[in-house]
Amino acid sequence: MSKQHPTPPTRPMREALAVPRGPVTLAGYDPSARPGAPVEHNRDLRNDDALLQSLQERLWAESTAGGTRSLLVVMQGIDTAGKGGVSKHALGPLSPVGVEYTGFKAPTQAELRHDFLWRIRKRLPAAGVLGVFDRSHYEDVLIVRVHDLVPQEEWEQRYDVINDFEAELVDSGTTVLKIFLNISFDTQRERLLRRLDRDDKHWKFNEGDIDERACWPQYQVAFDAMLERCNTEHAPWFVVPSDHKKYRNWAVGELLRETLEGMDLHYPQPSLDIPALRARLAPPH
Amino acid sequence: MSKQHPTPPTRPMREALAVPRGPVTLAGYDPSARPGAPVEHNRDLRNDDALLQSLQERLWAESTAGGTRSLLVVMQGIDTAGKGGVSKHALGPLSPVGVEYTGFKAPTQAELRHDFLWRIRKRLPAAGVLGVFDRSHYEDVLIVRVHDLVPQEEWEQRYDVINDFEAELVDSGTTVLKIFLNISFDTQRERLLRRLDRDDKHWKFNEGDIDERACWPQYQVAFDAMLERCNTEHAPWFVVPSDHKKYRNWAVGELLRETLEGMDLHYPQPSLDIPALRARLAPPH
Repeated sequence: MSKQHPTPPTRPMREALAVPRGPVTLAGYDPSARPGAPVEHNRDLRNDDALLQSLQERLWAESTAGGTRSLLVVMQGIDTAGKGGVSKHALGPLSPVGVEYTGFKAPTQAELRHDFLWRIRKRLPAAGVLGVFDRSHYEDVLIVRVHDLVPQEEWEQRYDVINDFEAELVDSGTTVLKIFLNISFDTQRERLLRRLDRDDKHWKFNEGDIDERACWPQYQVAFDAMLERCNTEHAPWFVVPSDHKKYRNWAVGELLRETLEGMDLHYPQPSLDIPALRARLAPPH
Repeated sequence: MSKQHPTPPTRPMREALAVPRGPVTLAGYDPSARPGAPVEHNRDLRNDDALLQSLQERLWAESTAGGTRSLLVVMQGIDTAGKGGVSKHALGPLSPVGVEYTGFKAPTQAELRHDFLWRIRKRLPAAGVLGVFDRSHYEDVLIVRVHDLVPQEEWEQRYDVINDFEAELVDSGTTVLKIFLNISFDTQRERLLRRLDRDDKHWKFNEGDIDERACWPQYQVAFDAMLERCNTEHAPWFVVPSDHKKYRNWAVGELLRETLEGMDLHYPQPSLDIPALRARLAPPH
């Protein structure tokens, strides 16, 4: 297959990567699998960037004619799972016009004085916008749960609060695409070691990441709970096996394409009196 | 020349496209010229996208280690000059991580109740961010001047206010790259007609654009004044001939590369005890 041609998946990726309703255990998900990949070599996996650009432009265009729809991509995954890499490689080809990326860090003191959704709501995509959350409100049932940053009775309630919040988003015209990047314990080790190998990766290294790594089992429990309790019909979770970076980026691109295609986006067709407008634009005689 | 290789300009683009200090008249600038272009065919002009990505990542990386620098790209140009096209093609290859695009429209009622710089300040790039303004505070000496939206004594003062504002930005660590996309009257006609030709461009068509076109001479006067009075040493203007889209995109990419290179950006080198970190990451025996 030519490197220049996009690679269609063998079956819809929203099916291949869906999380079945009911109990979830990540132990049953192989981080090195490649569901939907039609070719043997990861390097041959290519998204149709021109189609993705056109779909995103149609979403943006729709809003200029009064459309109110938007798309929110929520990405979660443990350190080094590739949230930044996906943003760069799978979302990079999109025009910055109408694309908004937000990386959520540890909340500030000001943010902690509000409800946990306050800072999230401030960054929700406006009409026409494709918003990308690199970490999100799910941190409030992940790191918060793992480290007991709030009492259990408080984080326990948040799963329902999040489901209601996302239902409200969907009702108001925002499609929600939730992607969990799944890597293995060994892959995380390799990636952290690689950051130590390369001078141009040292800035990404944080000794705290090794401390967090010690909590791997607790994170798996928190991920399982998130994937099970917030896997709703209006905002389902997708698990992307992410040990292979190229597969991961391609899979996210295909999920994005299918999601945008599912929105049935068209360029607005304003009623224009084209002959009259042409006449107005004619050069003076 | 292979399509895969970047095209170095024949001389620094920040020299080739600089506006000399002193009186400016756009009538002396050929919108179909190609200063600095080393090749005959526009299609052979290619930026070094990998280098641009690396430079932008270094800016972002610097901020994660406490750096306070940022870059603001200000784009102005008449309707159809290509501000959106540049954003898509020249800036599109950049990662959305650390890139923020803002398209300024007609101010809202709430914005009009503030100083004209209020809405601009809200969208200034934070440390590490490459911000892109598609239109900007310069609209307040362009459309505002052409249509007398405020009294002359008010817009007359704004040139100095803008110069002070940009000096303040530069002092606080923001490099300001100001780009004027220069097209001819005939090229604007062709592009407006083309929007009428294509169903997927109708959404961009606004009959008001034809009304604005009737003000072409007044806009040229306002552009001249802007390019002359706000062409400061700390934030100079560059005029990019924009009748040829491919040249325009390449030239903006090269201006961006040179500007980032001029910032002397390096990946932070935190002091890491690499052997100790490696040992912590070793698999258990």
